[in-house]
Amino acid sequence: MRNAIGWAALDKGAPLQRWAFQRRDLLDDDLAVRIEYCGVCSSDISAVRHSGADPLVPGHEMTGSVVAMGPAVTGFRIGDRVAIGNIIDSCGDCPPCRAGRENWCERPVTLTYGSIDPKDAMPTRGGYSSEYVLPAKFTYHVPEGLDPAAVAPLMCAGVTTYVPLKRWGAGPGKRVGVVGMGGLGHLALKIAHHLGAEVVQFTRTMDKAAAARALGADEVVLSTDDQQMAAQKGRFDLILDTVGAPHSLEPYLTALAMDGTLCIVGIPEGDLTVQPLSLIAGAKNIAGAGSGSVGETREMLDFCARHHITADIEILPQQRVNEALDRLARNDVRYRFVLDMTAEDS
Amino acid sequence: MRNAIGWAALDKGAPLQRWAFQRRDLLDDDLAVRIEYCGVCSSDISAVRHSGADPLVPGHEMTGSVVAMGPAVTGFRIGDRVAIGNIIDSCGDCPPCRAGRENWCERPVTLTYGSIDPKDAMPTRGGYSSEYVLPAKFTYHVPEGLDPAAVAPLMCAGVTTYVPLKRWGAGPGKRVGVVGMGGLGHLALKIAHHLGAEVVQFTRTMDKAAAARALGADEVVLSTDDQQMAAQKGRFDLILDTVGAPHSLEPYLTALAMDGTLCIVGIPEGDLTVQPLSLIAGAKNIAGAGSGSVGETREMLDFCARHHITADIEILPQQRVNEALDRLARNDVRYRFVLDMTAEDS
Repeated sequence: MRNAIGWAALDKGAPLQRWAFQRRDLLDDDLAVRIEYCGVCSSDISAVRHSGADPLVPGHEMTGSVVAMGPAVTGFRIGDRVAIGNIIDSCGDCPPCRAGRENWCERPVTLTYGSIDPKDAMPTRGGYSSEYVLPAKFTYHVPEGLDPAAVAPLMCAGVTTYVPLKRWGAGPGKRVGVVGMGGLGHLALKIAHHLGAEVVQFTRTMDKAAAARALGADEVVLSTDDQQMAAQKGRFDLILDTVGAPHSLEPYLTALAMDGTLCIVGIPEGDLTVQPLSLIAGAKNIAGAGSGSVGETREMLDFCARHHITADIEILPQQRVNEALDRLARNDVRYRFVLDMTAEDS
Repeated sequence: MRNAIGWAALDKGAPLQRWAFQRRDLLDDDLAVRIEYCGVCSSDISAVRHSGADPLVPGHEMTGSVVAMGPAVTGFRIGDRVAIGNIIDSCGDCPPCRAGRENWCERPVTLTYGSIDPKDAMPTRGGYSSEYVLPAKFTYHVPEGLDPAAVAPLMCAGVTTYVPLKRWGAGPGKRVGVVGMGGLGHLALKIAHHLGAEVVQFTRTMDKAAAARALGADEVVLSTDDQQMAAQKGRFDLILDTVGAPHSLEPYLTALAMDGTLCIVGIPEGDLTVQPLSLIAGAKNIAGAGSGSVGETREMLDFCARHHITADIEILPQQRVNEALDRLARNDVRYRFVLDMTAEDS
């Protein structure tokens, strides 16, 4: 077994504290990765607050360096800069896996934390830790020329927005709306802009307008202004809703053009409620999306490398993990915290 | 003005009674059509019960014969067998109209009944009547070789199911579910089957199983049986939900394969409520659909002619219109009532 040290909630909702644990010895296809940077996602907060701690080590968007390899690994060398996302294994044999859509594995998929890994029967523990062990298949090269700290959030927030933007046709001649301007939203802006779409940011406070434009928005709409919202009627081919707090979907359905799609990413609290006619009139639809397959994650990283896209981040030393979670919970971050997992105690 | 006689609700919710009214004199592009058959759609019941009567003449799926033509009409001759659906005009100039998607006209579209027609400032009155006057553009030839009485329901129930089946890819190699087996559902079965899809009927009573198979179902699933429903997990590319009564969508979202679509047609009562994770896991979506454009309606009629598809109907003389509405309200029809509008009082 390999020794690791992480930041864990020892009880549900408890502040994270240093906690030593073990990872499995390398299987033939495994890599061991020294974690250098780990992004802080709002789902980490939900997990700490709502999931049973056993203890719980969060973190599912990280970059680091290969420190050991199983004998069957190809395509990696010791010292390679690599990235890990929110999925670290899948059965490989169900219809989604065979179709190369590992994130929807029916076994189900092995998540970076909070799963029981069928390969070692141990709970998976996340990237707020010194080292990770996982199959090489679910490990990605950090593209040359991109800052590894700012690449980390691409592995969750990036792929979660890239996949539905591609699926629902964001590109030249399309108008895309982005609701919310946090970790997911700010990357959705950048990616949609670089896909060639006309991009409109919906925001609740106009003091974010200049920042939204700097990130790639062609236009900013104040979603709390009924008149501005009414003027959006029928304008959008796709709206990506990244807001976790409960809110009405109706104004965004109204803003869709015929055949338009409102795509829900992140995991909003509470049920979605929709008037049937809001979907029927104009043949609109509400879609869900989350994470991506191995192929989609590679494609996203290639796309980001080509367009020099990374997250806008604030780096904190790992010792300030609880501060990061508290500030994220009140949206006090532009736009993603990344923990420096190599920072040593002073 | 042209004299017509119809069946009208003189007050909201009142039984229909004979009522004389007038239609406009023909404009240059208009046809006058003697109505011979008119289908009875459940939205007719909603309109009588819930819309303000002024008085209200329902009926929006009919066939008949051309009896007069404006001077600019081409492509029709007196005596031609024609069909009329639930849309009789549109502005022709908004983005949907310019894209040939008249049913989503932003003016909005002129419905067969219950609209004010901008061309004559008169309320539109439906096909439970002796004659209709409308632009030739929104009038369709009844395909050769199909029974005009059984073609009438294609003009609403047929196009409303054909369009989403095509849009969401029903065809060879796809598995399509149909929820509900009324006017819309039975046509969805036939159309999906002839599009080459594997078709599964969801029903609440197994006594409909043989009939579903005769209509084109490869398989019948009892939706009230939790075990049968659990076994559907992840099986469907598309599920068309034609049920108007409130019901949970969750079992059908579970039954979708990844990227699958649950399409709502008809207009269900009450709001739709969905758990976000039911959409996010597997990147599923909920779509709406209703009616079709001129081009889609023509395509649907061509498709039905090629595959000899019409509705399974029960013909009643127009004098029994209230009986038809009452029986439809309790689902006592296989599968569509069509009123014989030429039946004379005995």
